[in-house]
Amino acid sequence: LSDVGEHGWIRGLVRRAGKASGALIVGPGDDAAALRAPRGTVLLTTDTLVEGVHFRREWLSPRALGRRAFRVNASDVAAMGGRPWAVLLAIEAPASLPVATLDGIVDGVARDARAAGAVLAGGNLARAERLAIAVALVGVAGRTIVRRAGACVGDVLAVTGPLGAMGAAVRARLAGRAVRLPDVPCRWAVGERLAPFAHAMIDVSDGLVQDAGHLCRASGVGAEIDLAAVPVAAACRRALGADAARFAVGAGEDYELLVALRPRAVRAARRAALRHGVGLSIVGRVVPGAPRVRLRNPDGTVAVPSRSGFDHFRRWRASAR
Amino acid sequence: LSDVGEHGWIRGLVRRAGKASGALIVGPGDDAAALRAPRGTVLLTTDTLVEGVHFRREWLSPRALGRRAFRVNASDVAAMGGRPWAVLLAIEAPASLPVATLDGIVDGVARDARAAGAVLAGGNLARAERLAIAVALVGVAGRTIVRRAGACVGDVLAVTGPLGAMGAAVRARLAGRAVRLPDVPCRWAVGERLAPFAHAMIDVSDGLVQDAGHLCRASGVGAEIDLAAVPVAAACRRALGADAARFAVGAGEDYELLVALRPRAVRAARRAALRHGVGLSIVGRVVPGAPRVRLRNPDGTVAVPSRSGFDHFRRWRASAR
Repeated sequence: LSDVGEHGWIRGLVRRAGKASGALIVGPGDDAAALRAPRGTVLLTTDTLVEGVHFRREWLSPRALGRRAFRVNASDVAAMGGRPWAVLLAIEAPASLPVATLDGIVDGVARDARAAGAVLAGGNLARAERLAIAVALVGVAGRTIVRRAGACVGDVLAVTGPLGAMGAAVRARLAGRAVRLPDVPCRWAVGERLAPFAHAMIDVSDGLVQDAGHLCRASGVGAEIDLAAVPVAAACRRALGADAARFAVGAGEDYELLVALRPRAVRAARRAALRHGVGLSIVGRVVPGAPRVRLRNPDGTVAVPSRSGFDHFRRWRASAR
Repeated sequence: LSDVGEHGWIRGLVRRAGKASGALIVGPGDDAAALRAPRGTVLLTTDTLVEGVHFRREWLSPRALGRRAFRVNASDVAAMGGRPWAVLLAIEAPASLPVATLDGIVDGVARDARAAGAVLAGGNLARAERLAIAVALVGVAGRTIVRRAGACVGDVLAVTGPLGAMGAAVRARLAGRAVRLPDVPCRWAVGERLAPFAHAMIDVSDGLVQDAGHLCRASGVGAEIDLAAVPVAAACRRALGADAARFAVGAGEDYELLVALRPRAVRAARRAALRHGVGLSIVGRVVPGAPRVRLRNPDGTVAVPSRSGFDHFRRWRASAR
């Protein structure tokens, strides 16, 4: 990387981002990118992947890493009912990083952005000891903006796909098995379709129990999740057998959407999701009471799960002890 | 920091960012922030400060560090003739970082953003070994968008303030003297005023010689800079005496604007800048020929300076040898 230099890299970014969008007036390579402002409402989010914390370089190809950096952000925009519009990519990299790795990461971001109708508008490359990829995403909202707040008692809770695949893959990797990590799913098209039916929506990044908890706290309601109804990824079921569902609701990084909607809206929502090839699984319901998530076991007993899912600093603390 | 956790931090961000802007529909704390789209043209830029590379924690207060992270980005938007509009803040931090440090950084960003009429729309906190602050800035362009390309032979080159203060301060710090590092100046208001007069503009982040070189390459012209005409910061002059001007044109991180404009526009441009209390110093001219920067010495001799200014990866390489 030290052979290319920061400015050389930016020139490469210019070539790659190219004229991907009609909105782009000035692309990467100037002080800032310039784009014709979209109409309506813009959505802003940022998320960083840090080597050794969020990924290991030997687990993911550079392109898969770039895709991941883009999609974890796109997932946040999808959870508001919006679509990606423009991407900024800030990379920290050690000087020893092969240029091909950097190129792969940028390609992964640029291709996915293009496929989503968004443009890679700019980037920055800074020297650091560890590789880190910070993506800032500008999205445009659909007609309906869906928040975490808004879930009502009586709503059903549904997810857009099976859970636990990433958790199971990480578990296998940590046990030394070279399984492929699943890609983050692209849910922005379906998120926009679900938005008109949704009282509240969130993406499942920290694990279903924890993210349902965020939704409950924002909405001032409780939730009950039926373990038997949770769609579990095949790889997770194979790896964990009878414990699969319990593992899947605590595992993070599935990036499916969790949506709260009126029972009688389910049919139409399901039809809308299916138009994008996405199934909708009812996993529980919104209940009155404290903003807590309870798990209903297949035998009918109910338990409040202990803290689970991701919180980077708490995890760090737990593992440091 | 491990006592607060990521989600606790985000709750703090919500409190701090508050309802700073009329455009804000959904603030930090949801999956993404939502803002009413501005009219016209948006500007996008991102820049990261990495501990040990761009700053040392003992050299800057947390609040000064936050200001710096915001302003280096705001400077890029200013160089296009625009103003800050919305900010995303992605922090990587070790678990041992005191919460007060994090709070100070966020305060520094939030206050400066508010003062600039922008809103801190969202953020992300990730665990890492080193502190790093990635800011993504959305700006709105003024009536005229100014690029690096566009400088014409015959244009004069002018800067909005004295150079070398940061370079001299870093030099003193490296020599063990506890001098205060200067803040990055706020040039967005003056940048917008200068835009109608400017053929090309860039902010001086890598050093005058190198940034003038970027402007030359983008515009396909050469440039000549008069060393005797370069405004040198008082601290730099005190520290470097006769070498001050030569040091100042190679030192980075002054974040003044370098603008190319027709000689007969100088008077009006100067008046416009002075309305914001900013002087405009003519430091050279655009000349025909290869896109190279030549330095005219006070004795009339002309030299092409060797590569100078910042390029993080090349610098790393040079120092690693």
